[in-house]
Amino acid sequence: MEIKITEAIKSRRSVREFTADLIAEADLLKIIEAGRWAPSGLNNQPWKVVVVKNREIIAGLAGCTKYWRVISGCRVCLAVYYDESKGYNETKDILAVGAFIQNMLLTVQELGLGACWLGEILNQENAVNNLLSVPDAYRLMAVIALGNPTAKQRSSTRRPINEIIYKTID
Amino acid sequence: MEIKITEAIKSRRSVREFTADLIAEADLLKIIEAGRWAPSGLNNQPWKVVVVKNREIIAGLAGCTKYWRVISGCRVCLAVYYDESKGYNETKDILAVGAFIQNMLLTVQELGLGACWLGEILNQENAVNNLLSVPDAYRLMAVIALGNPTAKQRSSTRRPINEIIYKTID
Repeated sequence: MEIKITEAIKSRRSVREFTADLIAEADLLKIIEAGRWAPSGLNNQPWKVVVVKNREIIAGLAGCTKYWRVISGCRVCLAVYYDESKGYNETKDILAVGAFIQNMLLTVQELGLGACWLGEILNQENAVNNLLSVPDAYRLMAVIALGNPTAKQRSSTRRPINEIIYKTID
Repeated sequence: MEIKITEAIKSRRSVREFTADLIAEADLLKIIEAGRWAPSGLNNQPWKVVVVKNREIIAGLAGCTKYWRVISGCRVCLAVYYDESKGYNETKDILAVGAFIQNMLLTVQELGLGACWLGEILNQENAVNNLLSVPDAYRLMAVIALGNPTAKQRSSTRRPINEIIYKTID
């Protein structure tokens, strides 16, 4: 499927309910490959991912958030980390990880798959890190729940553009 | 022009040299509109933009970074801010601003325009903020230089995907 960028950007919604269908390995690699090409300051690429397919570990992740249903129902979790050992400036590095995540989410959309970007789970960062056994330098940024979306209307809203543009200096 | 997402993601490069051609107002709005649809925690949309077209102010911004040539040569600068008054969690808010920026950069690519994400200018945040007269709660995240790209081959590299995936838990 090919959809143009602006269309994907505007039509993308968080998907919280998934079918039982699996995600093809090739699609999973396309998603991470898209993240790979995100920009970063000094091109330092401070991102790392743990791919979780194991149902027991997924259940363990579900136990770390009040949004456990989203994780329990998904097929694959991507735990996204900021690798501080590759970092040079915290703010810029975290912005880059945000771009990394967004590239992946847009590719999920292009592939006709669904994803939910989970942030509340960061409250249980230590538990997640213990479960996934990651290096000490890894800081959890998000868990992305992936799967095939159920048929459901999903809507969202944003503030109008004149509230985003603080001002224009002509 | 319509290009598919993964293609745009992989072919996007920083553009540091621009032609004298102006940017159409409609294109500028499309770029910011794409940012508008970025995801954010609790949908708090903690981003703000100052659009700078005035040549004197652009020259002033150029004076705030060692990459002054990029700014001097561009047509429009977007100063991207994190509005802390709309924030709820610093890390998640900054990740969201990263997604906001990436949406805009991908749309720049789709429109056949060029952009450079400047981070070094954050070293002169106070000078930039004074120049643009923004509220105290605004934290400078990036300046994006926009214009029409000169004809030039631009290449970049990324670490291989097996260095991004720390591990897969099957």
